[in-house]
Amino acid sequence: MLNPTADNTLGRYLLFLGDTVEPGYAKTAFGLRDWAGERCVGELALPAATVSTGLTPMTARQAHDLGATALVIGVAAPGGMIPEAWVPALLEALEAGLDLVSGMHVKLAQLPPLREAAGRLGRRLIDIRTPPADIPVASGVKRPGRRLLTVGTDCALGKKYTALALTRALRARGVAVDFRASGQTGILIAGGGMPIDAVVADFVAGAAEMLSPAAAPDHLDVIEGQGSLFHPAYAGVSLGLLHGSQPDLFVVCHDPGRSHILGFPAKPLPTIEAVIAQTVALGRVTNPDIACAGVALNTSAMTPEAAQAEIDALSQRLGLPVADPIRGGAAFERLLDACLANQEQA
Amino acid sequence: MLNPTADNTLGRYLLFLGDTVEPGYAKTAFGLRDWAGERCVGELALPAATVSTGLTPMTARQAHDLGATALVIGVAAPGGMIPEAWVPALLEALEAGLDLVSGMHVKLAQLPPLREAAGRLGRRLIDIRTPPADIPVASGVKRPGRRLLTVGTDCALGKKYTALALTRALRARGVAVDFRASGQTGILIAGGGMPIDAVVADFVAGAAEMLSPAAAPDHLDVIEGQGSLFHPAYAGVSLGLLHGSQPDLFVVCHDPGRSHILGFPAKPLPTIEAVIAQTVALGRVTNPDIACAGVALNTSAMTPEAAQAEIDALSQRLGLPVADPIRGGAAFERLLDACLANQEQA
Repeated sequence: MLNPTADNTLGRYLLFLGDTVEPGYAKTAFGLRDWAGERCVGELALPAATVSTGLTPMTARQAHDLGATALVIGVAAPGGMIPEAWVPALLEALEAGLDLVSGMHVKLAQLPPLREAAGRLGRRLIDIRTPPADIPVASGVKRPGRRLLTVGTDCALGKKYTALALTRALRARGVAVDFRASGQTGILIAGGGMPIDAVVADFVAGAAEMLSPAAAPDHLDVIEGQGSLFHPAYAGVSLGLLHGSQPDLFVVCHDPGRSHILGFPAKPLPTIEAVIAQTVALGRVTNPDIACAGVALNTSAMTPEAAQAEIDALSQRLGLPVADPIRGGAAFERLLDACLANQEQA
Repeated sequence: MLNPTADNTLGRYLLFLGDTVEPGYAKTAFGLRDWAGERCVGELALPAATVSTGLTPMTARQAHDLGATALVIGVAAPGGMIPEAWVPALLEALEAGLDLVSGMHVKLAQLPPLREAAGRLGRRLIDIRTPPADIPVASGVKRPGRRLLTVGTDCALGKKYTALALTRALRARGVAVDFRASGQTGILIAGGGMPIDAVVADFVAGAAEMLSPAAAPDHLDVIEGQGSLFHPAYAGVSLGLLHGSQPDLFVVCHDPGRSHILGFPAKPLPTIEAVIAQTVALGRVTNPDIACAGVALNTSAMTPEAAQAEIDALSQRLGLPVADPIRGGAAFERLLDACLANQEQA
């Protein structure tokens, strides 16, 4: 089983924001709001929080009464721990009848008060970031089916949103396509996947092979990328995911407003050209035909005019389709065409 | 602590060979014989085994009487498991007064008979491949001290032996140098290190930073490499180790008799030139001054004349020092010079 908690992850959620003041830490909450909004009942934040999803604020009891099945920790705390200050709210959720869902490296059951309360009340503590136990070493053998991987110039700039937007738009065109989640938020959105960065290093490529299994020749898996080949901390995850995914195509995700690796002010961002060249050079190990379909730009901080100018200039420079998948439009249609072009040749 | 078992790993060992018939599976036994021979009391093999280290065969009781403190599982079984057939011999070792040491992914204590016997007898079950719990995400910040990493065109062709041979020879020249082990055999030889391939993927580069901490500017860490950037299963480990090691220099290890990735008959070996280019391109993320010091050839299967011809031809082709560190000689002295050249400039 790719994700033993799949049944749970299609529950209905109360999004917990803790005491978060930095929107960048609330990726899980925003991702669920944007891509699984019909399963989000409301939000719960501690008084110190300044971040909001815009969903209705409510207590755990109210959320339960409205059909929520679980409280999802929708924010990451620095260091990946669960702060003491969150525990009373989490206990209250358990008391109100909700399970707890977490995508952090630390396990919910490692906190004795949560373990005790869940046991006493018969609630579940669901750790989305726990990989299955039976991951094999990668075989490296090419498997049938087509695959597209989103890669990035950095973390946290749109690889998941791009993969989800491509999946939705290609499905609307009638393509047999599945989104394959490699991170905790994607897993909650899709109801399954592989928390690739929590896998023991020797098995990362094997885990990526499991995530996107053999399929019909005309089926497309759109695989959520992680990190960046040029990231000083996470590049090994990115490379294992690239090798195990064996993508026929990749889309480079980039934020034109970012000049340095997030959290690493001494590390300049690689160029898109460098990311394309390295992804092809390294990706050829498991798929000699790997090619770049285009670039997804995150222009969320730009005016429509500035975004269009950036998209046009970059497309000219690279000779590739460039689009902001969230803005859509003609540029995005050209990127979708490129995602299907190889298929017609195959 | 880098290695909580450091005290144990400097014990005296009985090398256990199981029922192994493939010498390639006995890397740990051979490594200990070759680099920590003074702490190897003898060997123990089951009747079906055909592999031998050449050390004196003996029972666990005899080894204990000769001063052995532990039985080391010196072979890897396919799949990384401990076969049922080995258990009686392991129990006999516990009864004879020996601890058990294993470098496999599976933990010794997962076998109930071993756990029960060790508990009853007060013996230790020591799993060398268990990383510490407190590994941070990599900082990417350059730290003082010089570092050399051995990299490879594949697994299992001399990265550990090269690192050990370089360390020994540089120490003989009066250089302040330490060997840093990244795999189970190296950890047993050195009495410490980091089992890098057993670390959770997000923390591999951080684990490599721990393995080779800040040091005096003229101190050199020679770090044992793992896998290969072109390996379809393990490249992510290699890249995380490269980034966290921040090497100033690297030595490419290669076996001229190997044409394909070991165990992946469909995957041709990368060229040495490709490994150099990729190691520089990716290594620059954490050390912009990374450079190749030369190549270590494993010519153990060749005549001295054929080895010399291969070394000369390759050195000519690459314009770099090339040597077989185990054969030594003038070529190896030139490789050692290259490992020190950067230091004099610094």
